[in-house]
Amino acid sequence: MFKEAVFHRPKNEFAYAYDDKTLHIRLRTKKDDIDDVELIHGDPYEWSDETGWIFQKERMRKTGSDDLFDYWFQEVIPPFRRLRYGFNLRSNEEELTYTERGFFNDSPRDPGFYFCFPFLNEADIFHPPEWVKDTVWYQIFPERFANGDPSTNPKDTLPWGSCEPTPTNFFGGDLKGIEDHLDYLKSLGITGIYLTPIFKAHSNHKYDTIDYMEIDPQFGDKKTFKLFVERCHAKGIRIMLDAVFNHSGFYFAPFQDVVEHGAESSYRDWFHIHEFPLKVDERPNYDAFAFVPSMPKLNTEHSEVKTYLLKVATYWIKEFDIDGWRLDVANEIDHAFWRDFRKEVKAIKPDAYILGEIWHDSMPWLVGDQFDAVMNYPITSAIVDYIGKKSMDKQTFIEQTTKLLHLYPKPVQEVAFNLLGSHDTPRILTLSDDQKYRVKLQVLLQFAMPGTPCVYYGDEIGMQGDGDPGCRECMIWEDDKQDKDLFAYMQHIISLRTKYEAFGARGELRFIPTQSDSPLLVFLKYTESQQLLFILNPHDTDEKYHLPEEFNSQNKKELLTYTEHDPSQSITIEANQAKVFLI
Amino acid sequence: MFKEAVFHRPKNEFAYAYDDKTLHIRLRTKKDDIDDVELIHGDPYEWSDETGWIFQKERMRKTGSDDLFDYWFQEVIPPFRRLRYGFNLRSNEEELTYTERGFFNDSPRDPGFYFCFPFLNEADIFHPPEWVKDTVWYQIFPERFANGDPSTNPKDTLPWGSCEPTPTNFFGGDLKGIEDHLDYLKSLGITGIYLTPIFKAHSNHKYDTIDYMEIDPQFGDKKTFKLFVERCHAKGIRIMLDAVFNHSGFYFAPFQDVVEHGAESSYRDWFHIHEFPLKVDERPNYDAFAFVPSMPKLNTEHSEVKTYLLKVATYWIKEFDIDGWRLDVANEIDHAFWRDFRKEVKAIKPDAYILGEIWHDSMPWLVGDQFDAVMNYPITSAIVDYIGKKSMDKQTFIEQTTKLLHLYPKPVQEVAFNLLGSHDTPRILTLSDDQKYRVKLQVLLQFAMPGTPCVYYGDEIGMQGDGDPGCRECMIWEDDKQDKDLFAYMQHIISLRTKYEAFGARGELRFIPTQSDSPLLVFLKYTESQQLLFILNPHDTDEKYHLPEEFNSQNKKELLTYTEHDPSQSITIEANQAKVFLI
Repeated sequence: MFKEAVFHRPKNEFAYAYDDKTLHIRLRTKKDDIDDVELIHGDPYEWSDETGWIFQKERMRKTGSDDLFDYWFQEVIPPFRRLRYGFNLRSNEEELTYTERGFFNDSPRDPGFYFCFPFLNEADIFHPPEWVKDTVWYQIFPERFANGDPSTNPKDTLPWGSCEPTPTNFFGGDLKGIEDHLDYLKSLGITGIYLTPIFKAHSNHKYDTIDYMEIDPQFGDKKTFKLFVERCHAKGIRIMLDAVFNHSGFYFAPFQDVVEHGAESSYRDWFHIHEFPLKVDERPNYDAFAFVPSMPKLNTEHSEVKTYLLKVATYWIKEFDIDGWRLDVANEIDHAFWRDFRKEVKAIKPDAYILGEIWHDSMPWLVGDQFDAVMNYPITSAIVDYIGKKSMDKQTFIEQTTKLLHLYPKPVQEVAFNLLGSHDTPRILTLSDDQKYRVKLQVLLQFAMPGTPCVYYGDEIGMQGDGDPGCRECMIWEDDKQDKDLFAYMQHIISLRTKYEAFGARGELRFIPTQSDSPLLVFLKYTESQQLLFILNPHDTDEKYHLPEEFNSQNKKELLTYTEHDPSQSITIEANQAKVFLI
Repeated sequence: MFKEAVFHRPKNEFAYAYDDKTLHIRLRTKKDDIDDVELIHGDPYEWSDETGWIFQKERMRKTGSDDLFDYWFQEVIPPFRRLRYGFNLRSNEEELTYTERGFFNDSPRDPGFYFCFPFLNEADIFHPPEWVKDTVWYQIFPERFANGDPSTNPKDTLPWGSCEPTPTNFFGGDLKGIEDHLDYLKSLGITGIYLTPIFKAHSNHKYDTIDYMEIDPQFGDKKTFKLFVERCHAKGIRIMLDAVFNHSGFYFAPFQDVVEHGAESSYRDWFHIHEFPLKVDERPNYDAFAFVPSMPKLNTEHSEVKTYLLKVATYWIKEFDIDGWRLDVANEIDHAFWRDFRKEVKAIKPDAYILGEIWHDSMPWLVGDQFDAVMNYPITSAIVDYIGKKSMDKQTFIEQTTKLLHLYPKPVQEVAFNLLGSHDTPRILTLSDDQKYRVKLQVLLQFAMPGTPCVYYGDEIGMQGDGDPGCRECMIWEDDKQDKDLFAYMQHIISLRTKYEAFGARGELRFIPTQSDSPLLVFLKYTESQQLLFILNPHDTDEKYHLPEEFNSQNKKELLTYTEHDPSQSITIEANQAKVFLI
């Protein structure tokens, strides 16, 4: 038995409170090394009585494997909300008990040796907003979605879509433009809009904030925005704004004060200035986002800065009723700031969604005291590499996805923000070598992942574009230039996700083995009452698939095409197509 | 290479901010599997330039091995407080790069693949109080230390030491009694007193609080206590009180209100009542400490309870200037409560010491937002099993200790509360089969561990006693019944710890290999400027030891006995003795 591969540690994705009664316990072992795992558990103060041991034993379920490890799972409802527990591991050769103090041939008698989940306190449970699980997001880069009010056009606004986007040009997109197209979004099935920054700033992307308390005049004003949120809400669409709190813009008044008064400025400690005079036209001599002089890093540990930014965070909720904040460069700001941020935001809107931009493993931000979710770029990479770029094989995709699905607690997975691209990446069609079928398969995978999916504006009509600024082209509104087939496909996927609970955020995903030479990707998505079987064929030839015996059912209708199949016969999955069955 | 054994994850003991400039990076690999590890690191926004990669490579240092793993370490000062990093692993057979995305034959070019320490924010640094590192604690169970004021004796007080302690008898120990013996403690070298509870309660142990805002009248009153703290401070002794916030006593007024008024009580939600009427004389139908009806669990998530307890926490600091809180049953209270507790306590006394009673792995409480330290019972077990009970062999002790020394970040280790026993365990002499030499060796080990040591009252004069109530006997004050030799030994150890920085909290500990059949335990304790070599012989025969070549020096004086040795010759370590050299 490979003891070195066995891993468990409580109070993260390996042991957490799922709800106010239930604990989830996971274990990691070397792949194919252990045949059977039993969870031994009991109350710490009632580990034995006169009859001997009185703890429970339950067989754990294997929930998946990645390239190196198997993962095991068991749910427990401890009667007194306290738990001590260990694992009985059985392989061909031996049987061992794994505890906090290591491995034993015989299970230790002392509960002090075992792993400890001391008490299931309601206050520590990770409670993301329930509505997020049923939301389909649409990300809008406001300068490029629609120009609804030419009177607010910035200087030198170019005719809509008249040329390529550059880092500095303007096309006049605004809030009114979005409002004008809410029915378009509704028809697609969108129920949440994530807007990249809309506060006053010079650039077209607005990540260089001048004033966090003002709407950028090119987008409208507070009245426009208030009306906009009301209209969205009336149509069942929630609004998430972008909180750029890691850094301000160069023209943010407090930074301008420092530029002007130097060391004498009363705002000098709002930033991290290394020395005076400031150097602003080369590598800055103050902390910045990356090394960008126009984005000085804010000192979020300074009490005035913190007070100011928390006022911003609550102001737009209180006054405009926004539903969530996406947090830019979230991991470079201190945890202490985010803990207070969560407290203040949730105090005024308990079901606000707090979404951090983190591209890496994010467990330290997802234990209940900071974020509800992070932008799930690791799953983006896996899907895009596997189907879009065809640079990853099926087995690797399965292993990486399995690893990611075991990286966070289930409640975190259920609200993970799953995207195929954003204003920071090339467009999905372009990444997919302009092969629409690949986009379709990737959308299917994206929407099937546990979590909440987000469509980047224009991807649904087949827009193309390389990385920034290429991915920030003007939305195409000419009917004949929109890919209606792709739109209809995504519309259909969204409707399926809404109709079938197992398709959605709450469903669990389990890969189904195929013959080793089969190019088919097969997985089950299921809840307690519903099971969906997904079969994807990202290959250039048709492939046959025999439904496994236990999955046979009377539901002959395939859900993507509504064609009928005889489930007792093998099914043909056409080249570059997929099928989904309710089974 | 055993990839499955390789482990790293940032933002815990594997990667943390040591101070406002420095990161500590650790890696775990299978024991004896990897020959060499290089840390690759760089700024995320400056990973390469026109000349190619510009990240750094540094060879990591192996800091120890336990039964299964080797541990590797490197300190990094990232110029812009941001870091991406990975590990180059070299074994006989192969060379691999280990990153957040797994293992690669060639180091990936994309910094996004690497581990991420996003930003070193001052607000997230774990800052324990500096004074704790220089403190030698003395734990007092006040009812049993000294009766200084007979006028406050409770009913049926027994003559001091006239009989065995029982769970319910009283001997009249009080604050005045402790105050009368401060010079005794000073002479031993004590600089901090940890008092088990002193607030109003019926029992002799006072863990069943009636009133958190009153001193128990058997111990004195607020005036006595205020004077007591002042006298202690005047003598350079800090005071830590016991915060029993997990549960109240049965006679706590709010619980009495619930007993009296049942479901109508306005305090019903201060507790976790399952149903009315209350059952208080058998297994309680409300949450309690364990299943003890006289200790109803407090609902620390209720805002009134929280406000009340935080008022208690700050009151005794503000009004009486106490220096720290030991938190009873700390892990059964919600993390949210402790985060607020830390904020309020540190706001009024930034260098207050917050010490949790947790017997298990405590990383989730030690990331900077909750506790400064926990009672380090795992190291107690290892020392007691190895030397005291002789139930653990030397190799296992070395492995377990090495594992524990790698379980937390260095700043956490430096203030770990190291004890050989407490009011909750049998006395160390009794556990050691009444063999004083074993106590001496254990004290030496305890004091040599990184962290802050605590002496349980009476252990220094050779008191005996089994578990509760046996370990709670009256302190022996008769000169002829005190073990003066043991006292002098501990006095000496304490003075050495004070004199030699490397002996103390800040020193790092590294075991030195011996011949495999040698019973000698040899380790180095060192800081940048000082090295001490400890050689323990817990065996019944004398043993020879050759100082390794590189440790030879001109310091011939052995520190425990001040006898001279010729370091070029082999040294005799007498049976059951130890030697310490400055080298």
